[in-house]
Amino acid sequence: MSETFSVDVRITPRGGILDPQGETIARALGNLGYEGVSSVRAGRLVRIEIEAKSADAAQSEVERMCEELIANPTIEDYVVRVRDTVGQ
Amino acid sequence: MSETFSVDVRITPRGGILDPQGETIARALGNLGYEGVSSVRAGRLVRIEIEAKSADAAQSEVERMCEELIANPTIEDYVVRVRDTVGQ
Repeated sequence: MSETFSVDVRITPRGGILDPQGETIARALGNLGYEGVSSVRAGRLVRIEIEAKSADAAQSEVERMCEELIANPTIEDYVVRVRDTVGQ
Repeated sequence: MSETFSVDVRITPRGGILDPQGETIARALGNLGYEGVSSVRAGRLVRIEIEAKSADAAQSEVERMCEELIANPTIEDYVVRVRDTVGQ
């Protein structure tokens, strides 16, 4: 029996990779008067609903998708996490 | 005494809001032969390091930043989560 799983992929720029979007947010926060912000990194969050036989199967399928399409492993790190099953 | 906290903001398109980036990923996954994907939603992940007196203070400061700058509450939902303190 297959179930539908909700899976989150958190994609962040690798350490040392320039992140102009994060720098822009950091600068804007400073201009707005926010203090104490030492770093802002901007990444992506992709939420996938996928049918699979188990949580482990959903996890490894989404990891394959990340390698092949969703993330750019040269400049991005990603973490895949199965959140829960989705009610049919 | 202040500490530096690492705070994650997960920003997702609200239900019913069009998400062309998510739809593009879904279509590309289908073209690559992945089956069983019923939904892809693409959002943003912003990771902030901020000095604050407590985890609660860091949380509410970042929530203010979201309302004012980081998220667009008209079309996006956001969740703020303090992850941990950052070694000095």
